Amino acid sequence: MTASLSQLLTIEEFLKLPYIEASPAWEYSHGVAIQKPMPSTRHAVLQKRLLTEVDKHSQAYTALPELRCTFAGRSIVPDIAVIAWERIQVNEAGEPEDHFMQAPDWVIEILSPNQKPNRVIDNLLHCIRNGSRLGWMLDPDDYSVLIFVPHQEPNVCRGNCPLQLLEGIHLELTSEQVFSCLQIDKR
Amino acid sequence: MTASLSQLLTIEEFLKLPYIEASPAWEYSHGVAIQKPMPSTRHAVLQKRLLTEVDKHSQAYTALPELRCTFAGRSIVPDIAVIAWERIQVNEAGEPEDHFMQAPDWVIEILSPNQKPNRVIDNLLHCIRNGSRLGWMLDPDDYSVLIFVPHQEPNVCRGNCPLQLLEGIHLELTSEQVFSCLQIDKR
Repeated sequence: MTASLSQLLTIEEFLKLPYIEASPAWEYSHGVAIQKPMPSTRHAVLQKRLLTEVDKHSQAYTALPELRCTFAGRSIVPDIAVIAWERIQVNEAGEPEDHFMQAPDWVIEILSPNQKPNRVIDNLLHCIRNGSRLGWMLDPDDYSVLIFVPHQEPNVCRGNCPLQLLEGIHLELTSEQVFSCLQIDKR
Repeated sequence: MTASLSQLLTIEEFLKLPYIEASPAWEYSHGVAIQKPMPSTRHAVLQKRLLTEVDKHSQAYTALPELRCTFAGRSIVPDIAVIAWERIQVNEAGEPEDHFMQAPDWVIEILSPNQKPNRVIDNLLHCIRNGSRLGWMLDPDDYSVLIFVPHQEPNVCRGNCPLQLLEGIHLELTSEQVFSCLQIDKR
């Protein structure tokens, strides 16, 4: 189960809480702080698979796990945030700034058992309404991906349906291929 | 957990299975027969609340629980199907025909624990792509409603956000009001 704080907070108060970067990280929306669920092995395997695939096939973008993204009144920590390199601000030492204050270009969430799907979907909708061009929610028990793009009906992809990707990522990927990484016998 | 048949079927074969109207009912999509989950008490309370509210505020529509709707290659049994009276065909005795072969005007699903959210969402999307004008998915653990209308991003409503209804249903309803029926102490 996920933990949540019962008191209402402003986003400034939330960002000052000492433990929000604990593992699992805490997120903020609608005045409420909620801890992400503890990831399972299946979750970790899927997360690593997608990180690797996206990075391997893209020069312009980087895929980052558990990056805090704070924008438009929420502070979320997507399982994977895919961001154009040129949008990542660097500090004087030439290294990335610690806080990302915009919507990622593409957000990927992997549903965990006991996680509330409408809450995950709500965060994905927040992203595509505030600058993200693509959002995915993987349902590992259904072997399917729910895909959001702005101003459209979402779409559920399963089997050999090709998954919608960002332009500039040169990859063809089906649901079947994504979830095949769970078959660790067949590596 | 939900049961499913491992063999692929045509929809005609599915509809001839002797047990599909067992409780919980079986549904059919993508060649696969899947049994709905056993409803919990919270599910039953929410279902009754919505049936009553919709029926009380509408002359033109009727809200029906667990009605089999077979159309566009699937056979689904929504928790609630809201249908215009004029669309319900009657037999020679003046009673409703047993099989409804179109998309309901409004489809409501109440997510059960262990139910696969992407599968439920996929059925709601099937409805709004094939004639339904409104689809709701209640997430009782999140006290929120995910709302689908054709050709648009969905929307998650919680708290005192007014829920989108069909025209002709004279009702104002918020998420808070819907889920308040779970507080049986406060009846």
